[in-house]
Amino acid sequence: MSGRRWSWPRRNTPDQVRDRQARLRALPQWDPAHDFVWEWPLPAVQFAGMLEALTAHTVLPVSVVGPLRVTLGRYRLDDTGALVEEGRDTDELYVPLAHTEGGLSASMQRGMAAVLEGEPVRTHVVRDRMTRDSCFLFETTEEALTFARWATANAGEMRRWLHDPANLLYGQRVGGVPRLSRHARLWEVDTHVLGPACHLLYRYTTGDACGPNMITRNSFALNGEFVLPRLRAATGLQPERVLLESNMGGDKKPSAQYFIEGGHGKTVLAEVTVREQTLRRVLRTTARDLVALEHLALHGSHASGMQSVAFTPASAVAALFAATGQDLGMVGTVGGGTGLPHARAFLSLLRCDGPGAAIRLAQVVAAAALCLELSASAAASRDGSESFATAHLSSSGRQG
Amino acid sequence: MSGRRWSWPRRNTPDQVRDRQARLRALPQWDPAHDFVWEWPLPAVQFAGMLEALTAHTVLPVSVVGPLRVTLGRYRLDDTGALVEEGRDTDELYVPLAHTEGGLSASMQRGMAAVLEGEPVRTHVVRDRMTRDSCFLFETTEEALTFARWATANAGEMRRWLHDPANLLYGQRVGGVPRLSRHARLWEVDTHVLGPACHLLYRYTTGDACGPNMITRNSFALNGEFVLPRLRAATGLQPERVLLESNMGGDKKPSAQYFIEGGHGKTVLAEVTVREQTLRRVLRTTARDLVALEHLALHGSHASGMQSVAFTPASAVAALFAATGQDLGMVGTVGGGTGLPHARAFLSLLRCDGPGAAIRLAQVVAAAALCLELSASAAASRDGSESFATAHLSSSGRQG
Amino acid sequence: MSGRRWSWPRRNTPDQVRDRQARLRALPQWDPAHDFVWEWPLPAVQFAGMLEALTAHTVLPVSVVGPLRVTLGRYRLDDTGALVEEGRDTDELYVPLAHTEGGLSASMQRGMAAVLEGEPVRTHVVRDRMTRDSCFLFETTEEALTFARWATANAGEMRRWLHDPANLLYGQRVGGVPRLSRHARLWEVDTHVLGPACHLLYRYTTGDACGPNMITRNSFALNGEFVLPRLRAATGLQPERVLLESNMGGDKKPSAQYFIEGGHGKTVLAEVTVREQTLRRVLRTTARDLVALEHLALHGSHASGMQSVAFTPASAVAALFAATGQDLGMVGTVGGGTGLPHARAFLSLLRCDGPGAAIRLAQVVAAAALCLELSASAAASRDGSESFATAHLSSSGRQG
Amino acid sequence: MSGRRWSWPRRNTPDQVRDRQARLRALPQWDPAHDFVWEWPLPAVQFAGMLEALTAHTVLPVSVVGPLRVTLGRYRLDDTGALVEEGRDTDELYVPLAHTEGGLSASMQRGMAAVLEGEPVRTHVVRDRMTRDSCFLFETTEEALTFARWATANAGEMRRWLHDPANLLYGQRVGGVPRLSRHARLWEVDTHVLGPACHLLYRYTTGDACGPNMITRNSFALNGEFVLPRLRAATGLQPERVLLESNMGGDKKPSAQYFIEGGHGKTVLAEVTVREQTLRRVLRTTARDLVALEHLALHGSHASGMQSVAFTPASAVAALFAATGQDLGMVGTVGGGTGLPHARAFLSLLRCDGPGAAIRLAQVVAAAALCLELSASAAASRDGSESFATAHLSSSGRQG
Repeated sequence: MSGRRWSWPRRNTPDQVRDRQARLRALPQWDPAHDFVWEWPLPAVQFAGMLEALTAHTVLPVSVVGPLRVTLGRYRLDDTGALVEEGRDTDELYVPLAHTEGGLSASMQRGMAAVLEGEPVRTHVVRDRMTRDSCFLFETTEEALTFARWATANAGEMRRWLHDPANLLYGQRVGGVPRLSRHARLWEVDTHVLGPACHLLYRYTTGDACGPNMITRNSFALNGEFVLPRLRAATGLQPERVLLESNMGGDKKPSAQYFIEGGHGKTVLAEVTVREQTLRRVLRTTARDLVALEHLALHGSHASGMQSVAFTPASAVAALFAATGQDLGMVGTVGGGTGLPHARAFLSLLRCDGPGAAIRLAQVVAAAALCLELSASAAASRDGSESFATAHLSSSGRQG
Repeated sequence: MSGRRWSWPRRNTPDQVRDRQARLRALPQWDPAHDFVWEWPLPAVQFAGMLEALTAHTVLPVSVVGPLRVTLGRYRLDDTGALVEEGRDTDELYVPLAHTEGGLSASMQRGMAAVLEGEPVRTHVVRDRMTRDSCFLFETTEEALTFARWATANAGEMRRWLHDPANLLYGQRVGGVPRLSRHARLWEVDTHVLGPACHLLYRYTTGDACGPNMITRNSFALNGEFVLPRLRAATGLQPERVLLESNMGGDKKPSAQYFIEGGHGKTVLAEVTVREQTLRRVLRTTARDLVALEHLALHGSHASGMQSVAFTPASAVAALFAATGQDLGMVGTVGGGTGLPHARAFLSLLRCDGPGAAIRLAQVVAAAALCLELSASAAASRDGSESFATAHLSSSGRQG
Repeated sequence: MSGRRWSWPRRNTPDQVRDRQARLRALPQWDPAHDFVWEWPLPAVQFAGMLEALTAHTVLPVSVVGPLRVTLGRYRLDDTGALVEEGRDTDELYVPLAHTEGGLSASMQRGMAAVLEGEPVRTHVVRDRMTRDSCFLFETTEEALTFARWATANAGEMRRWLHDPANLLYGQRVGGVPRLSRHARLWEVDTHVLGPACHLLYRYTTGDACGPNMITRNSFALNGEFVLPRLRAATGLQPERVLLESNMGGDKKPSAQYFIEGGHGKTVLAEVTVREQTLRRVLRTTARDLVALEHLALHGSHASGMQSVAFTPASAVAALFAATGQDLGMVGTVGGGTGLPHARAFLSLLRCDGPGAAIRLAQVVAAAALCLELSASAAASRDGSESFATAHLSSSGRQG
Repeated sequence: MSGRRWSWPRRNTPDQVRDRQARLRALPQWDPAHDFVWEWPLPAVQFAGMLEALTAHTVLPVSVVGPLRVTLGRYRLDDTGALVEEGRDTDELYVPLAHTEGGLSASMQRGMAAVLEGEPVRTHVVRDRMTRDSCFLFETTEEALTFARWATANAGEMRRWLHDPANLLYGQRVGGVPRLSRHARLWEVDTHVLGPACHLLYRYTTGDACGPNMITRNSFALNGEFVLPRLRAATGLQPERVLLESNMGGDKKPSAQYFIEGGHGKTVLAEVTVREQTLRRVLRTTARDLVALEHLALHGSHASGMQSVAFTPASAVAALFAATGQDLGMVGTVGGGTGLPHARAFLSLLRCDGPGAAIRLAQVVAAAALCLELSASAAASRDGSESFATAHLSSSGRQG
């Protein structure tokens, strides 16, 4: 059995890739008509660093819609890690969407057309943090509280230790990767005591990367090299158990906490003003209908315990993420899937490929999602929601 | 201005596709080194029916991991629409994952290796419904209650009308699409009164399709052709406003209601039993550590208002969905992106390409996600979570 | 130590009551000026059956406001346990409020005055269930699912067993109380499987009692005398653990589930229509201001993860409950605190003292709470909320 | 009609009290046997300042249980408003409970008996804030963001203005009440932007008072006298609408926000360690059973969207609140119902009647609730929950 266990090759050497392909071709259900999945349109080496057990590829169609007229903020971090707007740029962008949901592209396009008749979409980034929630379990609540007070008092020292260029861990490597990342900057260390457990919420910015790996490495180092030895020295306390991540940070799962105080990515507000005549002519609705929809659907959302109040932003976000190589629920413009050849092309199309691009991309995503919201809400808002239904009925717009 | 508005071509004729490409190439930021995004690895016509404004494509790497040993249920619907298990099959599957998250494939592979040492993963489908939440707004709560009682009393008649092969709407078409779908079968009509608004929750099964379009069409027809005329005839009531969808169904947005009573897709339970020695040898943890992790992270989840209690299933689900052409948050094996050439190949690899395949695919997704949960939780569970950290530190496994 | 443990007398014999009083008087902090708390305004025996360790009493002031003009429904249960409205009565009621919150009585009075200028408040009871959530823990999810299916299939038989007048448990007593209550009627048995645990949601009506004790007794008997032996006989299954109550029923703690599908008490809708001129003259606001308040405060509620969308109904409910001897969060008109002399007087004032009184009382509470909502919302709604502030500033109305 | 409207007298002059009583006696349903509700056991004047339309009284039985052995913290506020523990006191207290829930007093007594066999209950206060959430609505999100930044930058100045003894509003009175309260001290001003609305969360401490009126007055003054004129002067901005309270503060309604970050009252942690032999002998359970209960009921709570994870603390809290004159959901030891004669007696019994008493009372409530949790959880935890059931079956302990 145990030989069996390791029989599936998992490396990305040419031999192992071919080996996996050969085994799958030999399966009874495999149809040779599908062999095109093994034939890389670009050299496989361009994909091999992304994931383990690389075996095949998939191709998704990409629509491009636009122009999206949008005014975006430029931001810097002040010395408390707060975002300061340094200026605003108006741009017209063409937005790539990788997806297969009929109607989505046409609807977003319609929203962009409505925007073109008036003021641009305006976006604002109000928070930027990636949180790792490490949990320290003690014997008693009293010890957990003592720890929480100690951590609060030592938050500044943690930051200095982590950001000290002389910290020896920057030079140490595990598996070829430095033990500390210079890109994940620590700003706050919040605590939440639940009985004998104290959650330590390390809040970082991660530059232009999405950054889950960076904050994992830095938090692991903080836990083991700073918190445990100094806590013991200062208080004699030693936790029974330390977990690097324990859910309060909101990693890949929405939570009330994220909606209330942010903490897992960039919080962007997007806004647009549409004139009544544009509502009527382009969006085939009225302000009164939209207000009624918002009211009824907000109550529907609340009554069903839904944390979102929006209509269908997830479709827009997912399509833009798929085109630009994003991880789930967080944006970045360096690292991970953003290194894919096609992702780089589409990031470049959006002018999201230099320093500061991540915060720009987050705004583009929000603005595009707002255009879809505008159009989809308009379609749903008229009495009977006929436009919404016929958008689902008809596919005639696609083929020409 | 209005000429401007419609200037972006949105059809998928060869001319309009080329026109869009030409305009994007002419943008100042466009780098001809990226022109490969216009070059289709397969004829564009295979993608043109999926979305509007088709312009380019993207390529995602696909890992394949396995074998996933799993016992899956076979189900039929009884005459109340409840799922009845007809038998169970044990299979060994190779799972395609389209993604760019380093470590994910290796971690899921490790979970599958642990499963291979003992009993297979077992999956069960306990609910299958797609819900459209139409909202009927009246003048008073009393009218909304009268309507709710009328709708409850007429639910059986609604089903008969919809399922009647002689219903003339099956023969009528809008934009080339029949006004009613034979695949979306109505089972329950629930009501929820919020002041003067009554939400009507139409609950369907959708065969092997994911089905949002089907249920939209059928609900629109029910609202306009059954509910409004018969309500008026029976009670004299006429709503002030009818909205086809108003959020209580949980479309693309998680809600407490979905977790409590289902209603937007298939509810699958997946389970696996792992022996202590496998935990130690393959997963490098112990039952005691996993129990402690579950307890602390469940409290972390609850304390942050998180509706999920899991670790990272979304990563597994998204990767499998991207490989098999799924829409957000719902599975299907016919329609939409499942018609993509690569998606068809990967569905076939999973033997998810005949009748009943959707309910099988839902179980495969759940089983694969459980393998990732098992491995990722194990890595996070040991005191200090060193394995979790080093998985993030090291990328050595990928390149060989 | 163990002698110490039982040293506090806990019975309600005259000797033990006096003993407790004597010990408290002997405490150093006791001030004889407070001895009035021992002097019962009515014979202590009238209170002795309510609680253990009876020692003293407290006196709360009761305001009475009115008339509350309200149209209430009369209901019967049909043979599925659904409420059927049999008629409606319009009444003018004087509402007793035991509380100490300055402004509450005056504000509710103002709401009643506004109602008097137009149509009465209308109330409707849409659901009536008390739920006990027993949890059955098995070894595997598969067993829990088998159990869930068995329970669903046997729900009808459970009802027949419980309601069978020949059931021997009606004649058996523990501590002087019958093992089964005839008043708690079982209607549905819902299941919710969470891994190897299956929650069994027994849903009852409890007549005019609030009923937590009844449903506890009947559920305990069902678990032990019906479910366990018959499950074992039919399937060979034996749970590892059975818990009588495990939170999914919503006992004394609000939950999304309760808001979505009810299940712990009576769900009442109350509605009133107020003319614009009454809004202006009596409530000093306008419809436009109230709509704006509702919109902003609903978003505030949603954004903070609040399950309620109301303003301050809890104050009204608590004051009416305190006057009428109610338990937390559920109404009844027989049993428990409703036997207190003063509670009986105030229930009689509300004509809530015969058969069917509980469902009437629930509606009176809802109607009174709506009058407070109306007035408090009006005060808060004007730009700046001056009336809300001055209601808090001024106490001049009380003393005359 | 309008004469009708004001016909119910609402003042507390002896004449109007008698007038109300006379009208109620004249109602057809009034039974003279209930006339004892008009007969005040103490002079009515002692109650007349509490509420409007004083008409009658009610009497609730009070049990006293104890001794509750507890170690309580003493706290001061540092200059950021954070609580600093200055010392800890161990005390033995007798706890008054005004309620009518059979079994509650005996169960809490049993929990206290278990505590007496080991270490005292330990309590800690970790946060103390009362929040008023004022909402400022602007034309655009951009304006709301500008306002939020202005408010954040001016929070220190708001505090100085409010706390300045020379602020003229301290000398101004409305309805005999000063326009500003010296007891409500402002510490933080948080902002939350939701589209064009900015919520301003004023966070106060309120000394020994529960304080809703104080924070209302001070927030109203801040809004009108500081924020609006200075905002206009500094930015030219003028909100379309200002609401004094808009739900994000959590006033009388639980919210995820409160559980996550506190903000409406005192956050107290209570803890107790119980030896296995005490669990067995006094509480008739085992640690293993309690752990299993916690696990299953936590999942039940989470699965039903319940924000609480506890068993029945509300019963304990409500009974102690009713005995000590507390408002809903917040404790105080001066003001409001704490001025009732009986409440003063019971506060004195708990030694909660001097400076700093509110923070002591909050801890006593938490400790008493924990004793009930301990006993009730123990009763529910054994396989089958027989003790829980028989506690509901038997009332034999009360009468002796």
